[in-house]
Amino acid sequence: CNAVLLSDHQHRRYNPLRDEWVLVSPHRMKRPWKGQVERSIEEDIPRHDPDNPLCPGVTRPNGKVNPLYEDTYLFDNDFPAVLPEAPNPGEPDHELLRTEPARGICKVMCFHPWSDMTLPLMSNEEIRAVVDKWAQINEDVGKEYPWVQLFENRGAMMGCSNPHPHCQMWATSYLPNEPALKEHTQRQYYNKHKQPLLVDYVKLEQQKQERIVIDNDTWVCVVPYWAVWPYETMLIPKRHVLRLQDLNHKERDGLADVMKRLLTRYDNMFQVSFPYSMGWHGAPTGRYLLEDMDHWQLHALYYPPLLRSATVRKFMVGYEMLAEPQRDLTPEQAAETLRGLSDVHYKNNKQ
Amino acid sequence: CNAVLLSDHQHRRYNPLRDEWVLVSPHRMKRPWKGQVERSIEEDIPRHDPDNPLCPGVTRPNGKVNPLYEDTYLFDNDFPAVLPEAPNPGEPDHELLRTEPARGICKVMCFHPWSDMTLPLMSNEEIRAVVDKWAQINEDVGKEYPWVQLFENRGAMMGCSNPHPHCQMWATSYLPNEPALKEHTQRQYYNKHKQPLLVDYVKLEQQKQERIVIDNDTWVCVVPYWAVWPYETMLIPKRHVLRLQDLNHKERDGLADVMKRLLTRYDNMFQVSFPYSMGWHGAPTGRYLLEDMDHWQLHALYYPPLLRSATVRKFMVGYEMLAEPQRDLTPEQAAETLRGLSDVHYKNNKQ
Ligand SMILES: O=P(O)(O)O[C@H]1O[C@H](CO)[C@@H](O)[C@H](O)[C@H]1O
Ligand SMILES: O=P(O)(O)O[C@H]1O[C@H](CO)[C@@H](O)[C@H](O)[C@H]1O
Repeated sequence: CNAVLLSDHQHRRYNPLRDEWVLVSPHRMKRPWKGQVERSIEEDIPRHDPDNPLCPGVTRPNGKVNPLYEDTYLFDNDFPAVLPEAPNPGEPDHELLRTEPARGICKVMCFHPWSDMTLPLMSNEEIRAVVDKWAQINEDVGKEYPWVQLFENRGAMMGCSNPHPHCQMWATSYLPNEPALKEHTQRQYYNKHKQPLLVDYVKLEQQKQERIVIDNDTWVCVVPYWAVWPYETMLIPKRHVLRLQDLNHKERDGLADVMKRLLTRYDNMFQVSFPYSMGWHGAPTGRYLLEDMDHWQLHALYYPPLLRSATVRKFMVGYEMLAEPQRDLTPEQAAETLRGLSDVHYKNNKQ
Repeated sequence: CNAVLLSDHQHRRYNPLRDEWVLVSPHRMKRPWKGQVERSIEEDIPRHDPDNPLCPGVTRPNGKVNPLYEDTYLFDNDFPAVLPEAPNPGEPDHELLRTEPARGICKVMCFHPWSDMTLPLMSNEEIRAVVDKWAQINEDVGKEYPWVQLFENRGAMMGCSNPHPHCQMWATSYLPNEPALKEHTQRQYYNKHKQPLLVDYVKLEQQKQERIVIDNDTWVCVVPYWAVWPYETMLIPKRHVLRLQDLNHKERDGLADVMKRLLTRYDNMFQVSFPYSMGWHGAPTGRYLLEDMDHWQLHALYYPPLLRSATVRKFMVGYEMLAEPQRDLTPEQAAETLRGLSDVHYKNNKQ
């Protein structure tokens, strides 16, 4: 039958959100790895470091002093990639040399006052405070900007330059590539089916029960059919929800629950603080707040690089950069592994 | 004027080959880096290692013995990501769960019998032998397969699992994402302008003289206007050429010359064997050999990750994965730096 075929034999799968394919080569898991082995992930981070600009009470490089914050803490990024003002680059002199103005703001949000804390080790109430802050930022910054990108780089392997638990927000005066693509694909699907793509997709996954990792009353966590990264997942609300600020109380508690359980399983897989990049995609804001955006469904994306162990990652290089992403294990195999892991964090287990 | 504006202020640039944008934030070079520092790049590799399956005379894991090759050596990848045969996954039961068959072959090509050799240290004649082999592979494998992806992952940082100088070839029964996109964009441009996009682009760059790094009678090496990686470059023939096998003798010698000079400059920048992924894109082959493919122009792409030093790289994570690629220095600044470097390799200098 189809499921066995797919788990044993190479094939391509289509990502309807990105209008792109991924090459799946399950037979390749047998390949020995003689390449780069990552350094072990740092596990003894001091709880407070007076030189760390994200810690409470610390003076940042620009002279500003952080308050003695007790839960989350939001502030302007001292080295923003986009600034609110920039001169207009003007008209291009040739269609192959096109430029566009870019304006925006960048913020940083600490999840917790302790540098040695991580989301899966935080309580549900503490994670709920993060969820509320995300919703607030999306609402506030979204009044002005059409795109508010909330994202977290976790772990040095994912370019995270500070071990203190935090995420970032970059808002821009335009829709960046990825949301522009998803605006297009979700609209097309909606026009054709009169249902949001991801609402239909959640229903399908609930029927199939092959790629769902965990769920609760309000959320589903799934390894998408078209996942690229070995243990990539998506969090999708069960109800049709456009934006973070539209989540009700129950859904916010449900999100804290599903995040804690997913991230605990990630950490338990290789008994290490699992690196990843994650972020939120929901209906655009700013001028789009006045438009019908029902083709969108809110979702979070987790892209973790580890493949075989705490020190052997998947490299997206060469073929992947020049031709097409390629994965070794199937999404169904990844979901099965994640399902088999415990909801109790290995660090709490040891105590 | 425009050039000054662009080098001082954030803006977006359009990539007409990928129909995508890149965020350029030149002011961000001032940001201090406290994140992951890469291990120093290994420089003492033994010339011959009896345990390295790419060395002459060695028995590979599958029992096959490598010949005592003296220049290049081509063989089948022992752990191929695509195999010539795979069962057809059949029709999807829903349009959100689409699968396609994938068939193909994977080969490995050694550039030189010595493990401690690299392309920029090889003679022009030795590089020319690599060029001829590339052309031959593209012609031979392209008889059957519509896409022949030649690529090189150089350095452990780029997922290269063996230090011996080599490249790979993955051919597939379909056009992967990237070439499928370029097939579309180049065709559209050609229909509109009756000229190949990249032929027009080379002319533009020759007029502007802002982003050309080096050139010779037959080739141009340019940091593309829309470059994503800090020191990304493209090699483009001056003549309209569809495929590697269509390069004439002079162009093949010219390619060896421009490769040697570019890779020497890369190595000289941080006095280290510069990591990168590179590969070739030209007109599709197989069934496309019978069609008019004049909208294509052959080109090589170099994607090197290093940003500030031999150990500080650019991470394409978080924002880049979820929203849009972002670069710090402008392509013009990168081209200027590369232009200022010597054509004499630092290792030959020391002797
Ligand atoms: O085939 P290699 O060199 O062992 O593997 C490397 O290149 C491949 C093609 O770009 C990638 O799929 C792998 O992730 C990477 O580690
Ligand atoms: O802002 P950070 O955490 O210092 O930097 C990290 O995240 C950014 C946004 O994804 C990337 O542009 C950087 O390359 C990365 O190192």
